[in-house]
Amino acid sequence: MSLLNSLKWRYATKKMNGAKVPQEKLDFILDAIQLAPSSFGLQPYTVLVIEDQATKEKLTPASWNQPQINACSHLLVFAAWTGVSQAQIDTFIADIAAKRSMPLEALNDYKAYITGSVAHFSDELKTIWNAKQAYIALGLALAAAAEVEVDATPMEGFVAAQYDEILGLKEQGLTATVVLPLGYRDAESDWLANLPKVRRDKDLLFKFI
Amino acid sequence: MSLLNSLKWRYATKKMNGAKVPQEKLDFILDAIQLAPSSFGLQPYTVLVIEDQATKEKLTPASWNQPQINACSHLLVFAAWTGVSQAQIDTFIADIAAKRSMPLEALNDYKAYITGSVAHFSDELKTIWNAKQAYIALGLALAAAAEVEVDATPMEGFVAAQYDEILGLKEQGLTATVVLPLGYRDAESDWLANLPKVRRDKDLLFKFI
Repeated sequence: MSLLNSLKWRYATKKMNGAKVPQEKLDFILDAIQLAPSSFGLQPYTVLVIEDQATKEKLTPASWNQPQINACSHLLVFAAWTGVSQAQIDTFIADIAAKRSMPLEALNDYKAYITGSVAHFSDELKTIWNAKQAYIALGLALAAAAEVEVDATPMEGFVAAQYDEILGLKEQGLTATVVLPLGYRDAESDWLANLPKVRRDKDLLFKFI
Repeated sequence: MSLLNSLKWRYATKKMNGAKVPQEKLDFILDAIQLAPSSFGLQPYTVLVIEDQATKEKLTPASWNQPQINACSHLLVFAAWTGVSQAQIDTFIADIAAKRSMPLEALNDYKAYITGSVAHFSDELKTIWNAKQAYIALGLALAAAAEVEVDATPMEGFVAAQYDEILGLKEQGLTATVVLPLGYRDAESDWLANLPKVRRDKDLLFKFI
């Protein structure tokens, strides 16, 4: 299915039926997330893949009791790094050196460039910047899920501080930024399943110069 | 080409050869952007599609003289709304009513819900929130471009205030948030063209619960 057909097929599923997403489809979605580009290539986030039902139930009240959290197969929590430390930059640089078989020293300028760039950001701005990178990965996760006909509902309707507490994210230098339940639509009882998609008309969304 | 193959094929092209992206491929990419989901469905951004060479040249010094700006075929500028006004919410609600053939009054609760939700946000936070939505569309634009084998380079390395000035964005209630040159790689002179992709290992990027 080409991307456009996939994107027309998908919608923000409000009611899921509890069926399990098979491992190979989950892996396909996670592979797309892993391949997402990010500023400098840092990928400044961790993605929690929650299949454990008890954890999903704990997160439900922190998600305004929206039923997708409970009835999804896997809940992806995109958790942005809170800040960018020198150790995280060093780890990234070492990873480039290893994967491209380069001496570490050859990357000194690039390392200094990244360090210098983030030095201007407040901690709050770093976290926002990291969250934006996670949204690119979210976009690719949506494309991947639709390609393998898995429903996915991007959600900001949750209490980040409660997620951070329940999942112990703060201690790991992370904060929940956007979540994506994966599963299968319960088309008969989902009010949104058969409504036409609403998108801004092209003459309003685009400006040609 | 499946999404994963597309994502492996793409890379942040540093050097483009000036060749033109044909209209049907550009349309494919813009269609994917139009289909991107967003919080509430607001799509709180405008995407400028810049083919005019003089404008690209004006934007080059505002982009640290990175050569993709000049040598791309089309430069996409994702410009987030600066804030969310009641008029913008009203327009969105009217669009839903029209596209789903519903009476406007049936959407009063949804309208009040959106208005109430954004009322808590400062203007700065609204703009950040809008920018995050644009990053979802950026992710889908990257997937679409790769599917039709068009190179695309997501870039934050530009001076937003200068873009806003050159493109007259501020008066339109917009601010440049991320840009995406579209074109074709000059593989022989692009140092990045043949280097292995570096991505965080799965055991670091994901946490399974």
